[in-house]
Amino acid sequence: MDRPEIILAHGPTPIPPEVLLAQGSPLAYHRGPGFGSIMGDVTDRLKQLYRTDSADVLLMTSSGTGALESAIQNCFSPGDEVFVPLAGFFADRWRRLAQAYGLTVRSIEYEWGRRIDPDEVARALREHPVNAVLLTQSETSTGVIQPIESLARVAKDAGAMVVVDVVSSLGAVPFEFDGWGIDVALGGSQKALSASPGIAFAAVGARAWEATTTASNPRFYFDWATYRKYASLPDPENPWTPAISVMQGLQAALRLYFQDGVEAALTRHRMLSRGVKEGVRALGLDLFGEGLDDNWTVTAIRAPEAADADTICARIRRDYGVVLAPGQGPLKGAVFRIGHFGYVSELDILRGLAALEMTLEKLGHPVKRGASVAAAEGVFLEAEM
Amino acid sequence: MDRPEIILAHGPTPIPPEVLLAQGSPLAYHRGPGFGSIMGDVTDRLKQLYRTDSADVLLMTSSGTGALESAIQNCFSPGDEVFVPLAGFFADRWRRLAQAYGLTVRSIEYEWGRRIDPDEVARALREHPVNAVLLTQSETSTGVIQPIESLARVAKDAGAMVVVDVVSSLGAVPFEFDGWGIDVALGGSQKALSASPGIAFAAVGARAWEATTTASNPRFYFDWATYRKYASLPDPENPWTPAISVMQGLQAALRLYFQDGVEAALTRHRMLSRGVKEGVRALGLDLFGEGLDDNWTVTAIRAPEAADADTICARIRRDYGVVLAPGQGPLKGAVFRIGHFGYVSELDILRGLAALEMTLEKLGHPVKRGASVAAAEGVFLEAEM
Repeated sequence: MDRPEIILAHGPTPIPPEVLLAQGSPLAYHRGPGFGSIMGDVTDRLKQLYRTDSADVLLMTSSGTGALESAIQNCFSPGDEVFVPLAGFFADRWRRLAQAYGLTVRSIEYEWGRRIDPDEVARALREHPVNAVLLTQSETSTGVIQPIESLARVAKDAGAMVVVDVVSSLGAVPFEFDGWGIDVALGGSQKALSASPGIAFAAVGARAWEATTTASNPRFYFDWATYRKYASLPDPENPWTPAISVMQGLQAALRLYFQDGVEAALTRHRMLSRGVKEGVRALGLDLFGEGLDDNWTVTAIRAPEAADADTICARIRRDYGVVLAPGQGPLKGAVFRIGHFGYVSELDILRGLAALEMTLEKLGHPVKRGASVAAAEGVFLEAEM
Repeated sequence: MDRPEIILAHGPTPIPPEVLLAQGSPLAYHRGPGFGSIMGDVTDRLKQLYRTDSADVLLMTSSGTGALESAIQNCFSPGDEVFVPLAGFFADRWRRLAQAYGLTVRSIEYEWGRRIDPDEVARALREHPVNAVLLTQSETSTGVIQPIESLARVAKDAGAMVVVDVVSSLGAVPFEFDGWGIDVALGGSQKALSASPGIAFAAVGARAWEATTTASNPRFYFDWATYRKYASLPDPENPWTPAISVMQGLQAALRLYFQDGVEAALTRHRMLSRGVKEGVRALGLDLFGEGLDDNWTVTAIRAPEAADADTICARIRRDYGVVLAPGQGPLKGAVFRIGHFGYVSELDILRGLAALEMTLEKLGHPVKRGASVAAAEGVFLEAEM
């Protein structure tokens, strides 16, 4: 019998039934009070999630990469210098985006799986000041959460703007736009918020708005000033026809997210992350990457001797309909990843671990049946105490 | 009682229940066979709709404006010269987009509502050759369908590439990518196809691909070569996480569209257009724009003495939940527009006309009750003979 696949990857994350219903409901027309109230509601909640009173939050129809490009277009001119600490696939996307627009990119290269060292970045910025530092909070390719608060501080000290990709982290791990002095933060609908992909957001602070006035990179569809103008109408609008159905779903997703409050959502993400990590360790597998206690979005796992990581992903998907994420770049074949963010429950984790046990046993890895489930149960029960 | 609004505007158009269900169904994961088969199916049908065997059709998560920008980014370099015949709001969008990327724009200005004269364009191109001509098939702001076949011929004769905005025309009026020698045509999900907004498409022919190899405009999210690479995988993909739910809906919408075949869909659009026009005339209102027999997407109507066009739109929406489109630019207040494309039936038109009758009567315009309904019924009955 055909069943929907069970997604435990790095996003899109599972979509709650309430969200599916909202995006399957008749569409609000995108000019007028109906859509205006949806957009207003979504914007207000996102501001809470970003922890900002000062920034504008702009909603764009695109994937997260489009939002990243919007920052390059709106804040910079060819020849501007930016610093990009490279420690994975998505940091490298910043580098490629910046270079596509004629920016000069300076960087320190870290081995994938490493955390970026704020002191090293501080030294580099002292030696050679730049216009901005481009950061990635959740480096999804390695599962590592980068130390944005410290990195933002050293960037500020060096007079550089701070632009952060929070696509796969916003809502899953702590983030403070105002408190940490962030200038731009780019997010997406399809990660910790568990809406469908199609809407990306840009939180834009005062210093970034100032930068837009001199930035000469060409832009039109992603021009922030145009978005701000339409969002300021009595019934907020998008300048272009937006992905209305996705926006309706995003509104429902944010309502669900806020039911228990932001703190509860973060605590849940931490617990699920611990459950996955203890479960995987109980199967004798090694975790990958630094700062495992902080990474509440995606866990990277070294493949055992018995099987290549790509084979594990292919087999568990074929046999049990569970979608895990294979390794990217230099980690291809060596690492696979389990996503545990968004609309994921303890039982979702337990069934995923059970499927992993059966898959690994079939692939010849020595498995004590039930061991990973038992370990994760231990984490979840302890959390209830 | 709250009911969904009845959309008879210039898009998004009404969404069929089958499409709502598809976009409200659990999401196919965007890497792998499930989504691959959806993307393959959508691409194949769009090629049929574009009437092309030769072009690639690329699917991007954005509104139509993003697709237009993708053409400017991928085909041109700063300083390139383009010709844009200006006859409405969306032709002017081409001008603004081209100028945002440093292109030199040459143009002839027409009064809004006029059809572009291919002979005049031919003369202008002979006097001053350009790299490309940027056209808009359905100038939604005026309802006018521009003569793309003739315009493409004179552009070709002058050695210029032909880039066409078919966002609001593809599927509603005849279009021949291969037959007319088009190089690029940009469409959207939310118009004649009646899917939700969020997916835009670019049909890209051989000459345009050639142009991309030298075009130096910066691009990343909308880089066509990247889309082609991912679309060529055994299970076709998008490079970035696409609006999966909208794509699922688009697949359902295309299935519905093709149920009766493309010819039947075009015939239906012509009939609905005639019904609206006869109905409106029977109320003593004047139609606006040239080439009324050909414009099967949106009909522009001059407001009567009794009421401003914006007032008519506001009142019919408030009292009956019917969304018509107000006038844009120089036509604001003077003209309102009825959209009659996409998932619209004869009865949708009749109830819309009835609501218009009651609205106009309340606003003081002399109305013979039932007259517009009777006139449209005449068109529809005749079509069944």
